[in-house]
Amino acid sequence: MHWARWGDPAEAAPLPEAARGLVELAFGPAAAQGTTPLPDVRLPDPGLDEHLLAGLSGLVGDAHVRVDHEARVRHTRGRSTPDLLRMRHGDGSDAPDAVVLPADHDEVVAVVAWCAEHRVALVPFGGGTSVVGGLVARRDGYAGVVALDLRRLDRLVAVDPVSGTATLEAGVRGPRAEELLAGHGLTLGHFPQSFEYASIGGFAATRSSGQASSGYGRFDQMVVGLRVVTPLGEMELGTAPATAAGPDLRELVLGSEGVFGVITAVTVRVRPLPEVRVYETWRFAGFTEGLVALRDLATSGSAPTVLRLSDENETALNLAKPDEVGAGGSGGCLVVTGWEGEGARVAARRAEATERLTALGGTSLGDEDGASWAAGRFKGPYLRDAMLDVGVLVETLETATFWSRLPGLYAAVTDALTTALTTEHGGPIVLCHVSHVYETGASLYFTVAARQQGDGLDQWAAAKSAATDAMVAAGGTITHHHAVGRDHRPWLAQEVGPVGVEILRAVKARLDPQGVLNPGILVP
Amino acid sequence: MHWARWGDPAEAAPLPEAARGLVELAFGPAAAQGTTPLPDVRLPDPGLDEHLLAGLSGLVGDAHVRVDHEARVRHTRGRSTPDLLRMRHGDGSDAPDAVVLPADHDEVVAVVAWCAEHRVALVPFGGGTSVVGGLVARRDGYAGVVALDLRRLDRLVAVDPVSGTATLEAGVRGPRAEELLAGHGLTLGHFPQSFEYASIGGFAATRSSGQASSGYGRFDQMVVGLRVVTPLGEMELGTAPATAAGPDLRELVLGSEGVFGVITAVTVRVRPLPEVRVYETWRFAGFTEGLVALRDLATSGSAPTVLRLSDENETALNLAKPDEVGAGGSGGCLVVTGWEGEGARVAARRAEATERLTALGGTSLGDEDGASWAAGRFKGPYLRDAMLDVGVLVETLETATFWSRLPGLYAAVTDALTTALTTEHGGPIVLCHVSHVYETGASLYFTVAARQQGDGLDQWAAAKSAATDAMVAAGGTITHHHAVGRDHRPWLAQEVGPVGVEILRAVKARLDPQGVLNPGILVP
Repeated sequence: MHWARWGDPAEAAPLPEAARGLVELAFGPAAAQGTTPLPDVRLPDPGLDEHLLAGLSGLVGDAHVRVDHEARVRHTRGRSTPDLLRMRHGDGSDAPDAVVLPADHDEVVAVVAWCAEHRVALVPFGGGTSVVGGLVARRDGYAGVVALDLRRLDRLVAVDPVSGTATLEAGVRGPRAEELLAGHGLTLGHFPQSFEYASIGGFAATRSSGQASSGYGRFDQMVVGLRVVTPLGEMELGTAPATAAGPDLRELVLGSEGVFGVITAVTVRVRPLPEVRVYETWRFAGFTEGLVALRDLATSGSAPTVLRLSDENETALNLAKPDEVGAGGSGGCLVVTGWEGEGARVAARRAEATERLTALGGTSLGDEDGASWAAGRFKGPYLRDAMLDVGVLVETLETATFWSRLPGLYAAVTDALTTALTTEHGGPIVLCHVSHVYETGASLYFTVAARQQGDGLDQWAAAKSAATDAMVAAGGTITHHHAVGRDHRPWLAQEVGPVGVEILRAVKARLDPQGVLNPGILVP
Repeated sequence: MHWARWGDPAEAAPLPEAARGLVELAFGPAAAQGTTPLPDVRLPDPGLDEHLLAGLSGLVGDAHVRVDHEARVRHTRGRSTPDLLRMRHGDGSDAPDAVVLPADHDEVVAVVAWCAEHRVALVPFGGGTSVVGGLVARRDGYAGVVALDLRRLDRLVAVDPVSGTATLEAGVRGPRAEELLAGHGLTLGHFPQSFEYASIGGFAATRSSGQASSGYGRFDQMVVGLRVVTPLGEMELGTAPATAAGPDLRELVLGSEGVFGVITAVTVRVRPLPEVRVYETWRFAGFTEGLVALRDLATSGSAPTVLRLSDENETALNLAKPDEVGAGGSGGCLVVTGWEGEGARVAARRAEATERLTALGGTSLGDEDGASWAAGRFKGPYLRDAMLDVGVLVETLETATFWSRLPGLYAAVTDALTTALTTEHGGPIVLCHVSHVYETGASLYFTVAARQQGDGLDQWAAAKSAATDAMVAAGGTITHHHAVGRDHRPWLAQEVGPVGVEILRAVKARLDPQGVLNPGILVP
C-alpha cells in the first residue's frame, strides 16, 4: 500500500481522458495538489522510552518492534479522504510510537497484557484500510501508542470440509484468504472494496460487507467462531451455527473495532469454489423502478450473488466501467447482477430473476458491462487519488434502512451533501448506489465530488456532519459497513440510545479496565 | 393452560392404545400417579406487605395486582417435566408473591422502576412455557417476588407492508400474532412446539426456534427491532436490517431472558401468507444417510420450509403421527419436508429437492404422513402428561453443533442418557430428531422416556446433568432453542468461557444495579 494513496503504486494512473473532461466541466480547471515526500512527514516525538521498547522487544523479538520513520508513517490512520489529505499535507501527528508485529496468538496475549500493565494504548492494525478513523487512538493519559500489526498471523489454521467452515488467523488479507481456501476447493466470498488489503480480523471487527453480500452474506453472517484476546483473558466463542445459550456474544465482538479485545482468529463459513461466475447488467427507467426490482428479488428469495443499482447520476457517469468513467451511460439506472455457484443452479436462478426483472420493466444489457464492472471493481479508490491530485475532493459514505424509508433517506442525504458542499462557484456531484439488499431493506452508498476548498478538511467535516445528521433524522443507520471509528462516534448515542452506550461502556470497563485498547474509538 | 399439565384441559387424553401397549412392554405395568388438587398446592407465605401491594396497585390498578391462590399457582415455574412433577406433588414453593398485569409499555416502565426502588424481584412472564426454569427467580435478599404477566400487551402496533415488517407487543401469543398478521395478508412463520401459548416477548428473550426454521429462520433472525425497559432506562434498537454501527445490541437482548430488561415490543420481519402449504415424508436407510441428505439440502440452498429427520428409534415409534404413536413405522429413518410459499416457487423448489433427495437414496412416502405430522405437531406435550399419569417420566432436551461433530454429539448424548437412566429394571427409550438445519450444522432434539423412580426429580436431574456434560464434551451447545434459565446455568461458563461470563455480569450490573430482574436466571 502506498503510504499516502490507495493501493499499489504501480496501479496508480492519472485521470482517464473522459473523467478529466468531466472534472473541468463540473469544477473548472484542474488545480494540481502536491504531496509532501514521505521523509518530510512530521511525526510526534516517540512516546515510548528505551525501557518500554525493550519490554516489547522481549515479547516479540527486536526485529518485530519497529520505530523507524517509515514504519510509523505507514501505520498512521487509514484511508479515508481526510486521512489521505492529512498525509499529503505532511501531517503525521497521529502516528504510533512503535509498530509491534506479534508472531502468533500467544504473543498477542503477551503484548495485550503488557500494554495494560504499562498503560500503553494499543491499536490493532490489519490492512490499515479504515475509512472512519478506526486507527487513530487517543494519546493523552497513556505512556505511548503502539500499533499492533497482525500481518504475521497469516495462517489457515483449520478446514472442516464436512461442516463447511475454516479457521483463519486475523492477519490474513482478502486475496490470501481466497488463495488458501482455493487450495481446498473453497471460497469465502467476501469482496468488499478494500478486499485487496483488508484482513480477516478487520472484516470481523468492523462488520464488513462485501460486493457479493446478496449471495454470500455480510461478513458477520459468515462468522461462526472467534478467538479474542482481552486484558481480562482470552475468549473462544462458537460451539454451533446457532444457540439459545444466552445472548450471542459473537455479535458483541463483531463490530467491536478492537476496543474490547484483539481478534486473533476467525472461523468462517466457506463454500465450494463456484463453477461459474456470470455478470449481467440491466437498465431500469429510474432509481424508483430499480428499487422496486431489487426489493422484489430480495423478498422473493431470488436475489443473485451480486446485486447493485446505480442511481441516475451514477449511471450517467458510467462508474460501472472505471476505465471509462465519464464516457456517458445508457440512460435510466443501471443494475449489475452477478451469479456464482453450480452451473445448473445458477442457470435456474438466473432464469427466475430474468423473468422477474423483465416483468418489472428491466432491459438486459448483456454480459459485457457486468464483466467490465467485475474486472474493475477494486479500482475505484485509485480514481479518488487521481481526483485529489487535480484538486477535486472525493469521498464516500454509506447508510441503510428499511425499504419504506429508503427513498426518504436517499433524498435527505443527497440534499444534505449538496447543500453543504455548494459554494458560489457551484455544487458537488453526488452519486449513489444500492449494493447490499435484505428482505426488509437495503444500503445506500454515496460518492461525492466537489472542488476542494483550502485543505479540504473543514469542508469535508461539515459535509460529513450534515450527511450523518440527515441519516439519523431520516431513520437510517449511521453506517452500514464502514464501522464507527472516531468519525461516527459523535452519532452513536443517537443510533443505540443512552442505554446502549452504557452497555458498551460497561463491557469496555470490565474487559479493559485500564482502557488501553484503541482508546477514543467506537465507545462514546 | 392447565396449571399442572400442558395446554388446554379439553385436549387432554389418556394414552392411545398403541402407546399403552408399548409402555407396558418397555417399562412394565402402568403405575398411576395422582395430582394434588389445585387448592391444596402449598405456597410460600406472601412476601409483599400491604404497603408494597398498594404501591403496585397505584401503578397498574387494583384489578391488575393479583395475590389469590390460583393466580399465584398459575404463575409458578414453567412446563419442564420437573416443573410438572413438582406441581403434581403440590409443591408451589417457587410461586410469586403477586402477579402484576401492566396495561402497556409505560406501566412496565413504572413497575420496573418501582421494583428496583423497593428491591422486589421481577419475573417477566409471557406464555409460562419455559422448560429451563426461566421463571424461577431467587428469593433471598428480596422484599418479594412479582410475576410481570405481559398478556395485556397484546397489540399489533404497526405494519410496514413495503419493508415487510410488523411491530407486535411482547404479550401477543403465537396464534394471536398469526391472526393479527393474517388480517394484513402476512405471516410470521414461527411455529415452535410452544406456539399455542408462548409469546412474542418470550420468543425473543429465549432465542426460540420454530418448526419451520429452515424456511422462515430462527426467531432471532426474524427480529429487526426491539423495545426494552431496563432499570437504567428504555432502549429502542433497530434502524436498519443490518448495520456496522458497533456491536449488534439486538443480539445482546435476544436470549437475555429478562435479566437485562423487559422486552415490551418486537419488530419482526414478516412474509406474505403462503399460497400453498405442502408436506411430504421421505424414508432413508438410516440416520447417517438422512444426515447426509439434510446437509445436502442445507448447503445447496434448497432446503424446504420445514425439514426434520427422525432417527431409527423415533421413526419406529412413529412420532410423526401423534395419534398413532407406537403403531409401528416403515423402517429406516423418516424425513418430514414442508413447503410454504408462492405456488410456482414451491413447485420449482420442491422439484429441485426431490431430485436431490432421490439421488441421495431417499424414497418419497407421499403427502399423507406429512399432513398428519403437520396436523398433530402441537400435540406432543399432551402425550407427556398421559405418560406421567402412568408413571413414565418423559422429557426432552436439545443441542446443536457443526455437521462434522454431529454424529459424535448424537452418540455421546444418547449414551449419557441411556447410562444415567438404566436401572436393574431396564433402560430408557431415547429418541432423537434433527429439526433445525443450517449450512454449517444442525440441531439434535432428544425425547427420553423411563420408568419413574420415586418422585422422578433426582432421577431426571442426574440424567439431565449427564446429558449436558456429554454435550459440552462433544463440542455441542448446551441449548439450541430452549434457553439457559436456571437449569442450564451451571454449564454456561463452559459454553462462553469465563470472559463471556464477565461480559454478562458487567451488562447486568450496569443495567440492573439492584439485581431485581429475574435474579438467579441465566447469568452464572
